[in-house]
Amino acid sequence: MKTLIILSHPTLESSGSQQFLVNSIKDNQDVTLHHLESVYPDGVINREVEQELLKTHQRIIFQFPFYWYSSPALLKEWQDVVFGGSAFYTPQGTILAGKQFGLVVNIGVSKNEYRAGGRESFTIDELTRPYQAIAKHMEMTYLPVLGIHQFSYLSEAEKKALLTDYQYYLTGVHPASLSHRTDWLIHELNRVKKESQSTEKNGTIDRIVEEISSRQQELLELKEALKEY
Amino acid sequence: MKTLIILSHPTLESSGSQQFLVNSIKDNQDVTLHHLESVYPDGVINREVEQELLKTHQRIIFQFPFYWYSSPALLKEWQDVVFGGSAFYTPQGTILAGKQFGLVVNIGVSKNEYRAGGRESFTIDELTRPYQAIAKHMEMTYLPVLGIHQFSYLSEAEKKALLTDYQYYLTGVHPASLSHRTDWLIHELNRVKKESQSTEKNGTIDRIVEEISSRQQELLELKEALKEY
Repeated sequence: MKTLIILSHPTLESSGSQQFLVNSIKDNQDVTLHHLESVYPDGVINREVEQELLKTHQRIIFQFPFYWYSSPALLKEWQDVVFGGSAFYTPQGTILAGKQFGLVVNIGVSKNEYRAGGRESFTIDELTRPYQAIAKHMEMTYLPVLGIHQFSYLSEAEKKALLTDYQYYLTGVHPASLSHRTDWLIHELNRVKKESQSTEKNGTIDRIVEEISSRQQELLELKEALKEY
Repeated sequence: MKTLIILSHPTLESSGSQQFLVNSIKDNQDVTLHHLESVYPDGVINREVEQELLKTHQRIIFQFPFYWYSSPALLKEWQDVVFGGSAFYTPQGTILAGKQFGLVVNIGVSKNEYRAGGRESFTIDELTRPYQAIAKHMEMTYLPVLGIHQFSYLSEAEKKALLTDYQYYLTGVHPASLSHRTDWLIHELNRVKKESQSTEKNGTIDRIVEEISSRQQELLELKEALKEY
């Protein structure tokens, strides 16, 4: 499966959070990063090029900072241009039918404020309804939004956890059940091992994978045993 | 009270619904029409000019066609530019605090489809949450959205009714209670009369106003009478 990130950010170079995310996917062959403001500095979107890009990917991610409860304007322009034209529609629905669609949104305000009575009154899910409606309209599977709140306040440990969540969001199986997440983690650890030259590091990875696998096996046996009751 | 319409439509000339609405306010001194694509064909918004415009109006209306459950991109760009900068914030809140904020949205799909189980799944109120959140954030009073569904299918009578609704939305008192609407109607009829040279027409207006006023009086008396029970 290949993932396409449509990234919209007018000042990408100076965004710490975006640089953090973008750097983590540089070597990932399954992820294509497409930064709209770099590709289209004049704001004129090429519909054909973009539609071809969509066709060769199975998971489409919009990644952007939350500006007034929505994306920067260029991503909206992209939608209005790319979600149209006769080539967008096929007898089986739009060229997006059957694909997965998710959002990675950087938000400057604490998650706590996005609820009834909070400073922002509405949840992120309510404020991103237009994207959910697009997924529905296009017959895409909508992934739960990955909201990154107040990145600059995160501790180093929280940033590391975010990296895992982000990588999973881009390449893991959805829904993110425990068994899907475990399989993914083992797969990722083995990938790191294959690329590594360090015997010590690889030994550590082996031990971690063994530990995870044995716990996974234990869990399966417990589930089987519980079936009898 | 003065009303500012921030209109965003990339092809205004060829839009029957927009021409219909725009023509109806040409002579209204209390309404300023500001078509973004005409003022900014290069897409570069002048923050200072726009903020000055906001300051001199008490009701702000976003008028646009519903493109992918939101506005055309230029209105989003306008938001990102105009809702910012140091002059936007005062010790009493933003320069929009205390104003009224409404949306006039042209929608190509029937209202019936905007509900759970309908083709579009979500209501217009849900899909326009980002605007409602802006009103909340800015401490503006949010007016119920005026959604114009499938304009080209409207009958002549429905179009006439729409004109009244639209005019009221722009200039009437909100909430649109019966007594507010009646007062507004009498006021508007008298305005037409003042501008008219036709004795016959003015006679008709007088009779209508008299009829409305007498019914209004009757209603008030009924209410008074009911108070005793």
